[in-house]
Amino acid sequence: MAIETRPAAPVSFETEPGRYRHWKLVTEGPIARLTLAVREQEPLRPGYELKLNSYDLGVDLELQDAVQRLRFEHPEVRCVVVTSGLDRVFCAGANIHMLASSTHSFKVNFCKFTNETRLALEDASRNSGQRYLAALNGTCAGGGYELALACDAILLVDDGNSAVSLPETPLLGVLPGTGGLTRLVDKRKVRRDLADVFCTTAEGVKGRRAREWGLVDDVVSRSRFDEATARRAEEFCAASPERSASGVPLAPLSKRVEEDRLEYSHLTLDLDRAGRHATMTLRGPREAAPPDAAGARAQGAAFWPLVAFRELDDALCHLRFNEEAIGLVLLETEGDVERVLGFDRLLDGHAEDWFLSEVRLLIARTLRRLDLTARSFFALIEPGSCFAGTLFELALAADRSYVLDAPGWQASVSVSAMNGGAYPMSHGVSRLATRFYGAPDTAREIAAEPRSYSPEEALEEGLVTVVADDIDYEDEVRIAVEERCSLSPDALTGMEASLRFPGAEGCESKIFGRLSAWQNWIFQRPNAVGERGALTLYGKPERPSFDPRRT
Amino acid sequence: MAIETRPAAPVSFETEPGRYRHWKLVTEGPIARLTLAVREQEPLRPGYELKLNSYDLGVDLELQDAVQRLRFEHPEVRCVVVTSGLDRVFCAGANIHMLASSTHSFKVNFCKFTNETRLALEDASRNSGQRYLAALNGTCAGGGYELALACDAILLVDDGNSAVSLPETPLLGVLPGTGGLTRLVDKRKVRRDLADVFCTTAEGVKGRRAREWGLVDDVVSRSRFDEATARRAEEFCAASPERSASGVPLAPLSKRVEEDRLEYSHLTLDLDRAGRHATMTLRGPREAAPPDAAGARAQGAAFWPLVAFRELDDALCHLRFNEEAIGLVLLETEGDVERVLGFDRLLDGHAEDWFLSEVRLLIARTLRRLDLTARSFFALIEPGSCFAGTLFELALAADRSYVLDAPGWQASVSVSAMNGGAYPMSHGVSRLATRFYGAPDTAREIAAEPRSYSPEEALEEGLVTVVADDIDYEDEVRIAVEERCSLSPDALTGMEASLRFPGAEGCESKIFGRLSAWQNWIFQRPNAVGERGALTLYGKPERPSFDPRRT
Repeated sequence: MAIETRPAAPVSFETEPGRYRHWKLVTEGPIARLTLAVREQEPLRPGYELKLNSYDLGVDLELQDAVQRLRFEHPEVRCVVVTSGLDRVFCAGANIHMLASSTHSFKVNFCKFTNETRLALEDASRNSGQRYLAALNGTCAGGGYELALACDAILLVDDGNSAVSLPETPLLGVLPGTGGLTRLVDKRKVRRDLADVFCTTAEGVKGRRAREWGLVDDVVSRSRFDEATARRAEEFCAASPERSASGVPLAPLSKRVEEDRLEYSHLTLDLDRAGRHATMTLRGPREAAPPDAAGARAQGAAFWPLVAFRELDDALCHLRFNEEAIGLVLLETEGDVERVLGFDRLLDGHAEDWFLSEVRLLIARTLRRLDLTARSFFALIEPGSCFAGTLFELALAADRSYVLDAPGWQASVSVSAMNGGAYPMSHGVSRLATRFYGAPDTAREIAAEPRSYSPEEALEEGLVTVVADDIDYEDEVRIAVEERCSLSPDALTGMEASLRFPGAEGCESKIFGRLSAWQNWIFQRPNAVGERGALTLYGKPERPSFDPRRT
Repeated sequence: MAIETRPAAPVSFETEPGRYRHWKLVTEGPIARLTLAVREQEPLRPGYELKLNSYDLGVDLELQDAVQRLRFEHPEVRCVVVTSGLDRVFCAGANIHMLASSTHSFKVNFCKFTNETRLALEDASRNSGQRYLAALNGTCAGGGYELALACDAILLVDDGNSAVSLPETPLLGVLPGTGGLTRLVDKRKVRRDLADVFCTTAEGVKGRRAREWGLVDDVVSRSRFDEATARRAEEFCAASPERSASGVPLAPLSKRVEEDRLEYSHLTLDLDRAGRHATMTLRGPREAAPPDAAGARAQGAAFWPLVAFRELDDALCHLRFNEEAIGLVLLETEGDVERVLGFDRLLDGHAEDWFLSEVRLLIARTLRRLDLTARSFFALIEPGSCFAGTLFELALAADRSYVLDAPGWQASVSVSAMNGGAYPMSHGVSRLATRFYGAPDTAREIAAEPRSYSPEEALEEGLVTVVADDIDYEDEVRIAVEERCSLSPDALTGMEASLRFPGAEGCESKIFGRLSAWQNWIFQRPNAVGERGALTLYGKPERPSFDPRRT
């Protein structure tokens, strides 16, 4: 049985405002306006229409691009108003016909990506002083309301008609899969019984009751809506400190797609499809770090950590959507350890600089995308590599790490100040602290004394999994790769999702751990996707028929 | 399509040591010995053999009975040694052929029950001073090792052969579903990369390496094994305070099973199978509470809170396994509010009494079993009911509560000291604090001033969901019931699992939230249960064939 595991047309994750089809981004001083007016006839794949401002991946990757660019290109923006360009409709959520006609793995990865976009938006609010205001000038359902939930405040027009709703359970037999249930009770802290009523009421809640239940922050008549939106946006601006007015444009990535290879300027992805694995090589900086923050800003989009991690981010999205059958990624690095550590000193020393801060935050988001990618990762640490500081995070994120024990090698891995907590995982803990969850003192000591480790020392300290000499190394890695690729892809996904996040959970990790895992389950249940399932029959005259057994 | 939703032979959850087939329980002063020697030819259902000390639900409900009885009947016990009566095999885990031949919902509920048994064992250790020692006198695989992980310490025989292992992922394409992955990294704090290697190594890890990785606490040669076990058990005894030597026997429940009704002494379950819902009525005490702890002990198994919650526990298990198609349970109470509050004063005032403490802990476990039951719960609060204190927890556990607004009714719900934190949910938070996650001050104030609330006051304070007068009440409830029962059972399960547990997560709630949700997903994937799935083909000559797509 040959299963088609590559899409007919690969998804490209790069775009820019001039090419947006569905969103419009306008900035005016400290206020940006992100307006959703989805072009019905321009879905990402043919076969469905994007009615009522419903969205697909094509719509969402424009949103993610906008959120990212606002941080780099418009640091002066302190409030982003998210609203609709349609009359009386804010957004109807993810397009149902797109979902109903998608494969299980596409659905799961689509939801994961849209979740990450909303988390990036919250990250911009928390860490970049760019607050988001959802100005719901019309009805707001499902994923539309989940987008609003990710914003800092929600204004709803009070026109006797416009409601917020999460109709997934009553109408489609699935969950609001983009963090809605978790944000409802964990972030907005809506009382759980009211949340229960709300989530089972297809028509949603509007007007005063929506405010009383905490579903929105304010309801405003249509005539006063624009004024109220403007006032709230100004309040947000007043509460956020001013930032530099000159941004850094994000140039398009340099990327060459070949049959078995993706080639970026600082990253190569080599695909072994028959072996179901890939090798991802991230290259260190070609030059020494600039001396100061101004020098870094002058390099702009060419600044090494920025370009390298934008490329890594793009490659991870590519793997998820365009190379579904690659089960294992071998992570390699190449370059000069000292140069990498030089960039780390710059990043560590200028936390107050908006640009360097944005670069750190982008690296953190990309590493979280890696943690949440449902593929196995093995780090291969060999002479010539530079698993140092920020790049050592790749080894810490990997499920295992293998070191070739070359004689005299003093810097197989290197800890820098950036491993102490600059790049928290989804559950809010650094990768070093996560690794040493059972030995917090060890984690603190290692973080407190940045230094390089020989293979032997790295093994002794527990910083790597396996060290093998040149007689054994190649065989050991080969056997591990073969074994990994022979195991059930599903069991590995569930196992990795459980082992990667010991200890704490937060709203963000609960979205992926608790909520998404349940959604994935439901997404393959006959009650949703069977012939008579609710998702399958949505919009058709037949009514769904459920297997009543509760599990 | 008529789906058979009731098992041919209903499962009974009651047993006692004289009827055990698979476990042997022997106590000798402060040390108890629980020995597993599974009778191969006595599975709960025909169709599989319980080889190598593998277990099914029938084996596990004996274990749960033993753990429970040790607390009530043998308070003098301070260490329980769990070991095997077989030569060179401790336990091979859940029986694979049983799993492979079970329905999805049975698998899910089986895992949930075995998880609860292991959590009850940890609860006994934490709260009753009964420490568990896993004496692994032979090989210990899968669920066998997960049982060991639930114990306070693990001794493994060092005979060159006996290993601990979690072979589910490499051999069966599923997860260790009884908390194994979570306990490995969260409880035993095994480093995540070592956990990754361990969980993908079918043959497991033995000897010194098992100790070095933290998988066991000690490895001991066969000749010294009994002595080492005895020494460790004595250490546990020495570290736990002595308790009363005279226990309270747990008499069999009084229970009558009729076609559409289960009748216990203090609880009735009325089934409306056509309407897919049931009414569960819990009756308050017939007499006033005894004046003191000695009076309570004298009543023994007839002590009202003990018998009422043992019956509730039994009814919940019955619903899960024997009535799969009942999607909604209407929770009612009947009785005298003041009497219920009298029992609460007794329970609250004697936390130091071992028996009253055990009763509280049993109530807490039963309420957690309710929180984790994948059915909707609506509390119906009508005159004559007694949703007071401990019984008010039922309304707090429900997804919604409806109150009939009868004129002059001053005690629709009553808060007692027992609502303040005596009965924590799986995530460690009281139901009152969970309800007011967004208003912690309100939760504290309500808990600090125990009193009764009229329907209006209860609504005003947010203690109930809906209050309706006698003109509207019946219709409102009827419509809510019909609506609920028309929704997708799967979507409701996922929705409730997300809304019931806002805020914190702990090891226990992660087992059900993160781990079990993933396991449920995997349990219906073709890679596990399809014709060529790994679970299906286990023990057969064919090799599984996987859809390689990662999701």
